[in-house]
Amino acid sequence: MTGVDVRLRLARNLRRLREQKGWSQEKFAFEANIHRTYVPDIERGARNPTIVVVEKLAVPLGVTAAELLAE
Amino acid sequence: MTGVDVRLRLARNLRRLREQKGWSQEKFAFEANIHRTYVPDIERGARNPTIVVVEKLAVPLGVTAAELLAE
Repeated sequence: MTGVDVRLRLARNLRRLREQKGWSQEKFAFEANIHRTYVPDIERGARNPTIVVVEKLAVPLGVTAAELLAE
Repeated sequence: MTGVDVRLRLARNLRRLREQKGWSQEKFAFEANIHRTYVPDIERGARNPTIVVVEKLAVPLGVTAAELLAE
């Protein structure tokens, strides 16, 4: 397991769950109360967020931080 | 769910898994290749590590980053 792996797992899970909600990246940014440019960065694995940020992303999707990092 | 929650989940899981291995905090720090003062900070929920660091903690414990954040 490398750092790239966990970032890409987050990227894939976030995109899948966001699309299941039918939310655009902008809509999701609004719901998570994060900057809109942060979402595409995370969804391509280009960010290494802290666990507090991961929880902030998880809440509007109705999942846990752990689920956002899962395989 | 708040930021405090996810830090405390990590704290509890790390301590439990480290003790299951029979490792001191110093031994775990060596195995995870992190600074030894970082371990007690994490185990009292005083740190907000990035997901890449969480994966680095998970590897020597034989779990995933997601498992380290789980309830």
